[in-house]
Amino acid sequence: MLSVIPVEGIAEVREGDELATLIAEAAAAQDTPLIDGDCVVVTQKIVSKVEGRVVDLDPDDREERERLVESESVRVLRRRGDLIISETRHGFVCANAGVDLSNVNHGRAALLPIDADRSARHIRDALRARHGVGVAVIVSDTFGRPWRLGLTDVAIGVAGIAGVVDLRGTHDALGRELQVTEVAVADELAAAAELVMGKSRSVPAAIIRGVDREWLREGSVRELVRSPADDLFR
Amino acid sequence: MLSVIPVEGIAEVREGDELATLIAEAAAAQDTPLIDGDCVVVTQKIVSKVEGRVVDLDPDDREERERLVESESVRVLRRRGDLIISETRHGFVCANAGVDLSNVNHGRAALLPIDADRSARHIRDALRARHGVGVAVIVSDTFGRPWRLGLTDVAIGVAGIAGVVDLRGTHDALGRELQVTEVAVADELAAAAELVMGKSRSVPAAIIRGVDREWLREGSVRELVRSPADDLFR
Repeated sequence: MLSVIPVEGIAEVREGDELATLIAEAAAAQDTPLIDGDCVVVTQKIVSKVEGRVVDLDPDDREERERLVESESVRVLRRRGDLIISETRHGFVCANAGVDLSNVNHGRAALLPIDADRSARHIRDALRARHGVGVAVIVSDTFGRPWRLGLTDVAIGVAGIAGVVDLRGTHDALGRELQVTEVAVADELAAAAELVMGKSRSVPAAIIRGVDREWLREGSVRELVRSPADDLFR
Repeated sequence: MLSVIPVEGIAEVREGDELATLIAEAAAAQDTPLIDGDCVVVTQKIVSKVEGRVVDLDPDDREERERLVESESVRVLRRRGDLIISETRHGFVCANAGVDLSNVNHGRAALLPIDADRSARHIRDALRARHGVGVAVIVSDTFGRPWRLGLTDVAIGVAGIAGVVDLRGTHDALGRELQVTEVAVADELAAAAELVMGKSRSVPAAIIRGVDREWLREGSVRELVRSPADDLFR
């Protein structure tokens, strides 16, 4: 059984704040202190804020916005109206290269962390060093999908947990070798966390308790990034 | 807080079995009886089996397999080696039109339910009529994604729950109207359920407890299906 616990009561953050401490203290204050083996999911927005990845942007200046999106992209895949679908330096394909005007002050825009694996590892290391707890960390963001409507949260950085779990060589319940082999557990954990975080409430983190111990290993979001050469739809 | 509870102990099913009863009894037997407001996630495979959506297929006959996939498709989008990415009658874009050889007997293949909203509604109605409990039901399947590696579970049918929750008009924590508005909660619930169901264990259903009551309304998987005209990548 998994429990998905919202971490509430984290106030507006500033550049340089230590997220590990804010999350550990908020979790303890709501009587769900972090324990070994937990997976902590943290939204990109709050990570970008503490890392200073917030820039000026006049929301009404479309050209300025497009220039910013292009500077955050290595390749533009599609444009329609205000929407740009592009590939970021990390290899993510998403709307507007992750440049986001919601939940930041007017005239400002949040950019994706430069290396969200590193962001996750920093939080994980700080939770171990300062709070004596061994947890996995996922940095999540909200992406659209082709073919399906609605947005889901996915992992953009991981530490201490697999991005993808490979079931190759295991057998199904009837003893046949499995055809379907690789499960994107970090994306599924990010999606589960989103269900308790919502979009309009101030819940920038969630704890997932009961994660399969076999998934707790050094991981990287690179496990989740399909290379352009391997992609049939780019 | 959400709890994601695997429903264990459901034996191999046959065509005509009543899934509602199997799930309700298995949940009660493990001391987690269904309660009003639960969301029950059921895998496509077990739904297809009780609905008789299983056909003969020689796994070594590639031509026969391709003919079957094409007969389950309205449009083939890409081919690479053994892999066909196509659009099904339901509007889903997935590998091999959902035709699946795992967890069925050798020489057999499971097809997608003809109408998995109806499948979900049947389970929901039977749980209410026979077991007196009001739950939402999601039928899930495991799909790949372009751009990202690894598979995640998504909803292919829903009953008593929204496919997509529209946050348009609500405001973010700073009072700005939200840019990001539509969350695919049924897909996120399916993904959360997959985390406790695994692929090789005999866990064909999960209970998600604590779902936001505002999401419990008549829904349809059509909310999640992007029309080809609206799709930039088809």
